[in-house]
Amino acid sequence: MRNRGFASDNNSGISPEILAAISDANSGHAIAYGDDIFTQKAVAVFKKMMGADIEVFFVFTGTGANVLGLNNMGRSFNSVICAETAHINVDECGAPEKFTGMKILPVKTPDGKLTIDNIKQHMHSFGFEHHSQPGVISITQPTEIGTVYTPAEVKTLSDYAHKNNLYLQMDGARISNAVASLGVPVKEFTKDAGVDVLSFGGTKNGMMYGEAVLFLNNKLAKNFKYFRKQGMQLSSKMRYIGAQFIAFFNNNLWIKNASHANKMAQLLYQQTKDIKNVKITQTVQANGVFAIIPKQLIPKLQKEYFFYVWNENTNEVRWMCSYDTTKEDVMEFVSLLRKMSSEL
Amino acid sequence: MRNRGFASDNNSGISPEILAAISDANSGHAIAYGDDIFTQKAVAVFKKMMGADIEVFFVFTGTGANVLGLNNMGRSFNSVICAETAHINVDECGAPEKFTGMKILPVKTPDGKLTIDNIKQHMHSFGFEHHSQPGVISITQPTEIGTVYTPAEVKTLSDYAHKNNLYLQMDGARISNAVASLGVPVKEFTKDAGVDVLSFGGTKNGMMYGEAVLFLNNKLAKNFKYFRKQGMQLSSKMRYIGAQFIAFFNNNLWIKNASHANKMAQLLYQQTKDIKNVKITQTVQANGVFAIIPKQLIPKLQKEYFFYVWNENTNEVRWMCSYDTTKEDVMEFVSLLRKMSSEL
Amino acid sequence: MRNRGFASDNNSGISPEILAAISDANSGHAIAYGDDIFTQKAVAVFKKMMGADIEVFFVFTGTGANVLGLNNMGRSFNSVICAETAHINVDECGAPEKFTGMKILPVKTPDGKLTIDNIKQHMHSFGFEHHSQPGVISITQPTEIGTVYTPAEVKTLSDYAHKNNLYLQMDGARISNAVASLGVPVKEFTKDAGVDVLSFGGTKNGMMYGEAVLFLNNKLAKNFKYFRKQGMQLSSKMRYIGAQFIAFFNNNLWIKNASHANKMAQLLYQQTKDIKNVKITQTVQANGVFAIIPKQLIPKLQKEYFFYVWNENTNEVRWMCSYDTTKEDVMEFVSLLRKMSSEL
Amino acid sequence: MRNRGFASDNNSGISPEILAAISDANSGHAIAYGDDIFTQKAVAVFKKMMGADIEVFFVFTGTGANVLGLNNMGRSFNSVICAETAHINVDECGAPEKFTGMKILPVKTPDGKLTIDNIKQHMHSFGFEHHSQPGVISITQPTEIGTVYTPAEVKTLSDYAHKNNLYLQMDGARISNAVASLGVPVKEFTKDAGVDVLSFGGTKNGMMYGEAVLFLNNKLAKNFKYFRKQGMQLSSKMRYIGAQFIAFFNNNLWIKNASHANKMAQLLYQQTKDIKNVKITQTVQANGVFAIIPKQLIPKLQKEYFFYVWNENTNEVRWMCSYDTTKEDVMEFVSLLRKMSSEL
Repeated sequence: MRNRGFASDNNSGISPEILAAISDANSGHAIAYGDDIFTQKAVAVFKKMMGADIEVFFVFTGTGANVLGLNNMGRSFNSVICAETAHINVDECGAPEKFTGMKILPVKTPDGKLTIDNIKQHMHSFGFEHHSQPGVISITQPTEIGTVYTPAEVKTLSDYAHKNNLYLQMDGARISNAVASLGVPVKEFTKDAGVDVLSFGGTKNGMMYGEAVLFLNNKLAKNFKYFRKQGMQLSSKMRYIGAQFIAFFNNNLWIKNASHANKMAQLLYQQTKDIKNVKITQTVQANGVFAIIPKQLIPKLQKEYFFYVWNENTNEVRWMCSYDTTKEDVMEFVSLLRKMSSEL
Repeated sequence: MRNRGFASDNNSGISPEILAAISDANSGHAIAYGDDIFTQKAVAVFKKMMGADIEVFFVFTGTGANVLGLNNMGRSFNSVICAETAHINVDECGAPEKFTGMKILPVKTPDGKLTIDNIKQHMHSFGFEHHSQPGVISITQPTEIGTVYTPAEVKTLSDYAHKNNLYLQMDGARISNAVASLGVPVKEFTKDAGVDVLSFGGTKNGMMYGEAVLFLNNKLAKNFKYFRKQGMQLSSKMRYIGAQFIAFFNNNLWIKNASHANKMAQLLYQQTKDIKNVKITQTVQANGVFAIIPKQLIPKLQKEYFFYVWNENTNEVRWMCSYDTTKEDVMEFVSLLRKMSSEL
Repeated sequence: MRNRGFASDNNSGISPEILAAISDANSGHAIAYGDDIFTQKAVAVFKKMMGADIEVFFVFTGTGANVLGLNNMGRSFNSVICAETAHINVDECGAPEKFTGMKILPVKTPDGKLTIDNIKQHMHSFGFEHHSQPGVISITQPTEIGTVYTPAEVKTLSDYAHKNNLYLQMDGARISNAVASLGVPVKEFTKDAGVDVLSFGGTKNGMMYGEAVLFLNNKLAKNFKYFRKQGMQLSSKMRYIGAQFIAFFNNNLWIKNASHANKMAQLLYQQTKDIKNVKITQTVQANGVFAIIPKQLIPKLQKEYFFYVWNENTNEVRWMCSYDTTKEDVMEFVSLLRKMSSEL
Repeated sequence: MRNRGFASDNNSGISPEILAAISDANSGHAIAYGDDIFTQKAVAVFKKMMGADIEVFFVFTGTGANVLGLNNMGRSFNSVICAETAHINVDECGAPEKFTGMKILPVKTPDGKLTIDNIKQHMHSFGFEHHSQPGVISITQPTEIGTVYTPAEVKTLSDYAHKNNLYLQMDGARISNAVASLGVPVKEFTKDAGVDVLSFGGTKNGMMYGEAVLFLNNKLAKNFKYFRKQGMQLSSKMRYIGAQFIAFFNNNLWIKNASHANKMAQLLYQQTKDIKNVKITQTVQANGVFAIIPKQLIPKLQKEYFFYVWNENTNEVRWMCSYDTTKEDVMEFVSLLRKMSSEL
């Protein structure tokens, strides 16, 4: 198998700049659990980017960020409305239900994006004690299938949420790719667009581990530190998460990395869209390409490049580009796919 | 408002025979928590009906029976597949998720009934640790919208479940009405049809309170007594639940009560199906009638007879008949509806 | 075995007045889940007794009342300080931990009663995220070992709790016996003494089933109705709990029943305290007598009268009197014990 | 404040050898979530050390290792017996209760160590559904107060546990220090001594993050991978945990680091035990020194060297040595303490 494939952006390693920052932080003692200068500086960078009134907490994983963020947005009798394809619905092994006790209400969508229209079906039975009370709308930006919400689309959802006394959560595991795709400051489609709590991801874009929970609506941050510990997401040597985030934002590394990944996905899309027997299924707006390919090609291709089947029934596959994907990686993969397809 | 309406079969009171049995059991002391002769005798009646190898436990409510039954059928990383209209999905305020940690996977259906075809969408990602593992298929008999599974339909589902290493749970909150509807022994569409765990309801058919969890597959009963206590469903003066169930089955009271309720629903159906502006939406196979009626009629009718709106978007309403609904109740209601409809 | 023993006050049956009330309530339909006149009237009786500003909810069991009450008094990262002998610590099979996620912090006591002195050991690490935050002090009145807090003792604890930003919960499974023992209005040692949430029991004093959660501090009642449903403690035919409580309070039945039980316990104490080989271990202030007796007597006595061994290591046993215990029951038991003891 | 203090061994940084290993592993792509060669090799090292039949899983934190390990050793109705000073009892903010639903039963001890004698008080009520069923005995090695169990002491506890159908869990957050202290192979006081599940720590002894859950009794490993994901402890770029553990064991780094830390603690003990007003409270067997010092000295000393007060009531403080503590650090600290003490 090749050294780099298209399986997932978290199959990639650590960005060299970030690894260097870890090394630089490795001097002497630092008070554990976040009371250190690296954590403090990283928090300051987030506040500068989003506003001094936000609250910032570091956790280990994207699942941890989502679950603990949601937990602070409601109580166990609430429900969370999300796309059927949402990570919290299909890829967290029930962690949200287990920790928060909340009910997840999935919505079928063509493109992974929620709209008022497709949410509405779940907006009923308010005040009726037999029914889980809708409490949170959760969106992923970019979505799990590579599409991106515009700032206006986010705003529409947050207005709707707030008008109905719900909150809006954003799973930003790949938020850098959304910034690179939209070409606007991250604040524009998050805090300014009314997002209440944001899972801000780094691991899929060059970090080693570590994500941030941003309480853009700081009233929701109450008691979070206790839940983080009880949720097993409190890092002892937290300085190393802080140091990574500092390097992540330094010199716009996060945007450079994400832009490159997005560009590689565009290249992959351009080069495959006209290949016989290949059908691209989603608009490519971030770093993922989704395609239906002949069933018999899948194992052959996987022998050379590992990637995941997204939908076993339709033979839809997912190809993810990463910050370190090269043009050559893409062209060799395309050439192999083209060859295999022509030989069918 | 009239004394008896069509709101719910649990708006009715206690069957006189059952109240008498409570009174008869009220003599002297009995060891609490189930070690009494009434409980023992009631368990024996269930075993006679279903087989000596089953395990029987009494709880307070239908929600308690469902949640604790499901809890013994899997672990927190499992998922439960059910109809979107299932009580466990829409009417238990997230109790299954909270207590079991499991994920509920709802399925859209036209008639409240699961089939292999509509279940299949959730049968994937086995062994994949990111995904809640399908563990239980849950059906309601009769369904929440008044339809009834045939024994063969249940068998098809249990075979499919077992072939895929899942279990089949049945929510039988109104199981008496299914027996009365199908005209077969209860064992035929439960134990003999491969149901593993059954919530056996009594309260909606003339009991005061109390339901039974039947482990038709007795291997699943392990440790249930501890979970029942931890789940706050262990009754201290349990003799009164036992005494009720004894009376429930005595002289076929349960079937008589349910047959009457079903008959009243048929009468209601026959008398309303041709009323102008009234559209019956589901086949009437048990004791409920579902109909779409003009929006403006709803509050007017409710002033006289309380009932629930089933779907606010479509103006679908639910009319439930009970063991004590009289022919006069139905005819007066129909006459009022007819009059109101004609005056539109 | 005799018809009436000294095993537990919930081995007794239903007070005739209460059974009659159930029967009287059994006429026609009543809206389920609490929107009925019996529930409303019972709530009104509680408000008259405790103050119009309290909130009242009915549940099925004492464990349900304790768990759901505590759940509304803190969050999962809080801890609950209680006596080691507390029902929530030893007799609820971990239901509080399971539902609330809170930690239970037991305190050794000589007499089942908390004091500032014995609580203090757990009052530390406030604000330290690694440590469960003390949130609730929970006392039982009367205690599980038959002692009774004075109003002043309760007040001292509630002042201490409130000064430290904790709440005071009271498990009043046998609260009637405390009222009878103290000879003061129930309000004096509950609401007036600063108790925030009270589990008000009826089952051990002549009711069939049903307990009340009283939010004496009404700010803590928020969202309770959802947690009650999610906690599987919402009764459908709730009118029958209401009807029971109405009869419970009518003509002071609750006090009469409890006074009688207490009196029988005093008689039992007076008659046994000087028996050779019998050592009474606790002051008898309510309806329970605790005694150490020779190990070999225990099974012999139990053959005639069932009762529980309280402490297997010390051969301490518990004898509970009930509202229907007769003077003859006590004297025959005493006579048997005296005979057995003398024959050793 | 000085660069290195005695606050905690996790205030130290990453051992240079381990940081180098992270860097070496940072080449190309590796399949995420553990299907990589670093993880595989690290698992192999553990198996070589402990036996080929064990099961090994990596998690992020010591709390994560404890909670998920315990979760696989029982069900929510079980209880876990541990020392009152145990990390799972006082320093995990209720994470065990929240995730597992189990009850924690603390035991007062003079030295942090469980014995059959002090455990016995909790070994009762087996089969009694009202009572949480004792399921696990949990010990910490070395204990939180710096004492070490001998292999024979561990064996005595595991025999007792197994004879009573309980399991033995060991929290080995500082297990390297126990190995260094006892001078025996780790297997001797873990697997060979009957420990069922072991939390094997690395972070406090030179790793950056990452701990291992070792199922020495492999029957208990069932379904662990799902619980790890649901428990938010599944690392995406797991290769870096694997790489760290490989370096940790390479050339006996873990023993060298731990031996040094222990030696520094011995030095600290020797130098302080005779200082006026200083009373060492625990035998120093690992890398921690516990002492009672005059209250007024505490803040003064902390200004120069950060450390934690262990017991606010007794003015007991904790001084932890680390793999990078130097002889000079100790001597300067001692000299300051001596000076301050003499000036009292």
